[in-house]
Amino acid sequence: MTDLSEKMHKPETVCIFGTGDFGHSLGLRLLQSGYNVVYGSRGPKNSLLLPKGSKVMTHAEAACEARVVFVAVQREHYGFLSSLASDLEGKVLVDVSNNLRRGLYPESNAEYLSRLVPGATVVKAFNTISAWALQSGGLDANRQVLLCGDRSDAKQQLMDIAQSLGFTAVDRGSLWAAADLEDLPLQLFPLWRLPLNIAICLTAFIFFYTLTRDVIYERVNNGKDIAFRIMVSLANKAFPIVSLVMLSFCYLPGALAGFLQLYNGTKYRRFPDWLDRWMLCRKQLGLLALAFGFLHVLYTLVIPIRYYVRYRINVYTISLVTFNKTYEFDNMAAWRYDSYYSMGILGFGLFVLLGITSLPSVSNSLNWREFRFVQSKLGYITLLLCTAHTFLYGWDRFLKPSSYRWWMPPAYMLSLVVPCVVLILKLILITPCVDSKVTRIRQGWERQGKTSANGRDTKTNQPLMA
Amino acid sequence: MTDLSEKMHKPETVCIFGTGDFGHSLGLRLLQSGYNVVYGSRGPKNSLLLPKGSKVMTHAEAACEARVVFVAVQREHYGFLSSLASDLEGKVLVDVSNNLRRGLYPESNAEYLSRLVPGATVVKAFNTISAWALQSGGLDANRQVLLCGDRSDAKQQLMDIAQSLGFTAVDRGSLWAAADLEDLPLQLFPLWRLPLNIAICLTAFIFFYTLTRDVIYERVNNGKDIAFRIMVSLANKAFPIVSLVMLSFCYLPGALAGFLQLYNGTKYRRFPDWLDRWMLCRKQLGLLALAFGFLHVLYTLVIPIRYYVRYRINVYTISLVTFNKTYEFDNMAAWRYDSYYSMGILGFGLFVLLGITSLPSVSNSLNWREFRFVQSKLGYITLLLCTAHTFLYGWDRFLKPSSYRWWMPPAYMLSLVVPCVVLILKLILITPCVDSKVTRIRQGWERQGKTSANGRDTKTNQPLMA
Amino acid sequence: MTDLSEKMHKPETVCIFGTGDFGHSLGLRLLQSGYNVVYGSRGPKNSLLLPKGSKVMTHAEAACEARVVFVAVQREHYGFLSSLASDLEGKVLVDVSNNLRRGLYPESNAEYLSRLVPGATVVKAFNTISAWALQSGGLDANRQVLLCGDRSDAKQQLMDIAQSLGFTAVDRGSLWAAADLEDLPLQLFPLWRLPLNIAICLTAFIFFYTLTRDVIYERVNNGKDIAFRIMVSLANKAFPIVSLVMLSFCYLPGALAGFLQLYNGTKYRRFPDWLDRWMLCRKQLGLLALAFGFLHVLYTLVIPIRYYVRYRINVYTISLVTFNKTYEFDNMAAWRYDSYYSMGILGFGLFVLLGITSLPSVSNSLNWREFRFVQSKLGYITLLLCTAHTFLYGWDRFLKPSSYRWWMPPAYMLSLVVPCVVLILKLILITPCVDSKVTRIRQGWERQGKTSANGRDTKTNQPLMA
Repeated sequence: MTDLSEKMHKPETVCIFGTGDFGHSLGLRLLQSGYNVVYGSRGPKNSLLLPKGSKVMTHAEAACEARVVFVAVQREHYGFLSSLASDLEGKVLVDVSNNLRRGLYPESNAEYLSRLVPGATVVKAFNTISAWALQSGGLDANRQVLLCGDRSDAKQQLMDIAQSLGFTAVDRGSLWAAADLEDLPLQLFPLWRLPLNIAICLTAFIFFYTLTRDVIYERVNNGKDIAFRIMVSLANKAFPIVSLVMLSFCYLPGALAGFLQLYNGTKYRRFPDWLDRWMLCRKQLGLLALAFGFLHVLYTLVIPIRYYVRYRINVYTISLVTFNKTYEFDNMAAWRYDSYYSMGILGFGLFVLLGITSLPSVSNSLNWREFRFVQSKLGYITLLLCTAHTFLYGWDRFLKPSSYRWWMPPAYMLSLVVPCVVLILKLILITPCVDSKVTRIRQGWERQGKTSANGRDTKTNQPLMA
Repeated sequence: MTDLSEKMHKPETVCIFGTGDFGHSLGLRLLQSGYNVVYGSRGPKNSLLLPKGSKVMTHAEAACEARVVFVAVQREHYGFLSSLASDLEGKVLVDVSNNLRRGLYPESNAEYLSRLVPGATVVKAFNTISAWALQSGGLDANRQVLLCGDRSDAKQQLMDIAQSLGFTAVDRGSLWAAADLEDLPLQLFPLWRLPLNIAICLTAFIFFYTLTRDVIYERVNNGKDIAFRIMVSLANKAFPIVSLVMLSFCYLPGALAGFLQLYNGTKYRRFPDWLDRWMLCRKQLGLLALAFGFLHVLYTLVIPIRYYVRYRINVYTISLVTFNKTYEFDNMAAWRYDSYYSMGILGFGLFVLLGITSLPSVSNSLNWREFRFVQSKLGYITLLLCTAHTFLYGWDRFLKPSSYRWWMPPAYMLSLVVPCVVLILKLILITPCVDSKVTRIRQGWERQGKTSANGRDTKTNQPLMA
Repeated sequence: MTDLSEKMHKPETVCIFGTGDFGHSLGLRLLQSGYNVVYGSRGPKNSLLLPKGSKVMTHAEAACEARVVFVAVQREHYGFLSSLASDLEGKVLVDVSNNLRRGLYPESNAEYLSRLVPGATVVKAFNTISAWALQSGGLDANRQVLLCGDRSDAKQQLMDIAQSLGFTAVDRGSLWAAADLEDLPLQLFPLWRLPLNIAICLTAFIFFYTLTRDVIYERVNNGKDIAFRIMVSLANKAFPIVSLVMLSFCYLPGALAGFLQLYNGTKYRRFPDWLDRWMLCRKQLGLLALAFGFLHVLYTLVIPIRYYVRYRINVYTISLVTFNKTYEFDNMAAWRYDSYYSMGILGFGLFVLLGITSLPSVSNSLNWREFRFVQSKLGYITLLLCTAHTFLYGWDRFLKPSSYRWWMPPAYMLSLVVPCVVLILKLILITPCVDSKVTRIRQGWERQGKTSANGRDTKTNQPLMA
């Protein structure tokens, strides 16, 4: 008993090859967590900057001191490791490296390392953790250490080290997964690409559409230059339209999935690929829609302090006085405009709520039922309010021939197509007879003719924001 | 040594009964983390959709392959397990099931399973994790796996599996706690119920109060129809009032608790139940108040673009011109309105700050002292600013008899009652002589006559937002 | 095998000295996680409030029941422990205490405890966790338990307990670190001090500058009292200026660091201390700038409902009518004002995005490349938009002699100095020839004359927001 206790009392020694920033930060963190740290280096000069309490030796000496060796060296410099093969025999080599670009090398750095030093067990780990995250103690940075390797015992050692350092270790399987882990830090918002492209294309289209309909039409037909309207008026037409369309794009795949499940008569058939991909980026679609909605709010609230608006109001007031016209109060207009603003404000308020609940720390504290309540029920109410807001904006304008310039209807009309489709599809899905069928399918029921399997799971994999 | 190492090298095999969504996602995640996965299924057809690398067998065969068996099957189908009792002898059975509603069955699913297969050790686990959270790798979803069971060794095995999968395991005691764990995913914002009901009742009351006082009074006495004001003007009266009252409700229980502790002469006597429950939902009260405040800000900023407001301003300007009236600048009015807006803006700014610090990820990064500084000190300054904002809004209106229509005072006056009470109570509590007494009590001091116990703790359990 | 299993089956017993709030909450949590809990207390009276399932004994009896003893007692009462030295021999004593102020005692509480009971192993742990966090189950509070101590086995036991309770344990080294851990809960926003002081000084300076230039100048020269403008107009001059200057302060150190690295020809020389400290509080500088920007937005949007503004517009309209002046539409003014608002809105929108990505839970879900893309690229675009917004605000005012009252230029001009410097520095840094040099340096390259070391790390420790 005392022997074991004595052995545990003696702190473990860890070796680090490489005295750069990452090696430096890692050593500091290991020292803080009670490990002994030995650096392997070619020259003694670098020791000046190394953390207090660590030792510096040659690579071969350092490797003998520890069972775990962190290789904090760039892949280009791995060559020298093959000459240390005998010293590294039986050690656990931890590859922490990343590349500057994807696809630079045919095999992952960790597999290359494993080929160079076949006598050692290579574990890929810590490459998703930055030197800065190591320094800041994991308090304000990602705490997940992803690791992979071919031997469970070596991985377990790394998981113990990661946990002592305050990180959560996640095993990602065999060393074959190293290529994936090395790609992770090189990703740049992969899930945001598609939604961002949609948003940019939509914005460009609406912008040029309204530019033609408003500015160019005015120029051609009346010879008036109102190009200054690009800055605020046109932006404030493009942003709300993109926001509404993106919001409905966010709920369209859920509705389509419902109909597809109805058609298939089972939830156990895979959705087509495009629908799967669409469903995966709904959160991003929704957040972009919120961003555009936020800009729309600011552009709208800035209206009364615009020079052009003040000018117009002044001119109108003066004309009323000069020509002694009477100014009738239009009760219907008061109702209409106030309802229009009210719908917009309430819709935006709910939209902000949806955005807040999609923050990782908030959505983590919700259970599945709460998350679905917010994202589905409140989401549809948001869509309904925003669509009503747009209808009230248009009012009877779609009846007036003057609204159709060069056969182009006002832009707001275009924006109403997708939301209306989504709302009608949802309306069909929540009629009692259809709803009960969809619910049964989502609970595992299958239409006759399909072989029914027992052993269904209890949690239904319903679409995220259906 | 080599034997142990060999044994650890061989990946552990885990068995899953049920090939539905949850079983599918769980298997995929286990495979990614380096486990061998064996599915137990009645028919071979389902194997088409199972994750690559897993095997499918009959239930009996699969059970023999592993020591841990996940039962990803609905409770209604548990029946077949009793026929497998001999195969499951000595195994760890993991119940991951949830019910569709609460109180559906007299005993929890896990206890029922334990009764069906008495030879196995049942652990309730993973039921709070959705199939989707398993798929998304725990990066964007709740990482806490709650588990309970009667044997520590079985629970330890599950905790190891949960940790390999990147989750944090939390032991919730014996299998008796399974009923609680099964209720968790069925909850729908339990802490938000009371605050939401308060908010809805308050809003309804203020709405009908102002409806009577403004719209119906005008209709009855002057025959004018100003019902269009419901959409914006009345909403903008109800929202700020509810916001202010809810904000003060958020600080009232802390002040009451202070007086109660003074009266009791000790902090070791329990508060009455209603006060305890009130104190537990202060965060929710505050966040609802912020939501209503946010709507108030939007409704206020939209004022100058309202049709009605523009009409009124135009009519006023025209009347000035027509009747050649002089328009005197009222310096006092300029001060008053500007102070009124300034207080409101600063109060709202601080309020948003309070809201941000109550986000889980932000409040986690604060220590107790910082959290109390923000929620208590800054919170009271917010309340003070918002109360001053309301006083400046009212100004001398409470003196004018015309403000009291049908003996009903303006709604803003009602809203000032609770905040003033809270501020006065707090003012008393922070006077040096009272404050020193409260501080001593909160540090463990007890009034003479109470038996004093040594061994007091060092951290005082002060009210959250006191 | 059965013996071990039996042994593990029997729940571990933990002893707690002290029946105060913290002891109470800790016991409750331990019981929930399946531990047996024994309280050590002097009197039996306190047992009334203790959690169900726990036992109360004398200190000596309780100590005999468990291997781990939590000392939830204030340091002042530690005295009695020396009399229990024989009972505590070989036990693990956990010091959970905090002090009321820093520097109250020459040695840390944990070291004092270790001196009092030299036969026991002292571990400092759980002092950063509040009684409230223990009660709330770690779901909504900080889950990191920091611990330190001189024996690894004792620390491992505490780490196991912390993990069973749902916390993440972080080893912070030997007992010598206890003083640091005891300081942590007493800190009050240490990283916010410097940025807050800068913000307060800047605001005060700009406020008095504009007070002199606008209000006092008007009083002295024209005898007009426009002091009411303090509340909104002056605030709305100070806030945007402070916001812009703080935002540029946030990017200045990164640019300076780039030039310093160019000058040094290596990234391996330490930055001067003031630059290091500056770089560490960039996040706080940026968030304060955002707060001031937010206030600026609200103050701006409130303009059209101000009494003074409505008065001015009315007077202007009336004068136009009365003197029958024509009101020419100025196309350039329309362009200028609309661009000015548009830049401001887009800049603020991006600024809010920067703020959201600096929320802990959001920044955790980004990899290093994504974080740098947002904080650096989008950050500079934000700065550029906000600077353009300010230039458009000023327009040609800097040419007019009337702008220079008492030789004081308009305040907005002062605010442009730092942002312009930062943008010019950045412009130099991103010219291809300089950029390639900086990139090489940041990848580990060193200018000739420096000894180059092999074994550089692969992750460059670039400045956070460079």
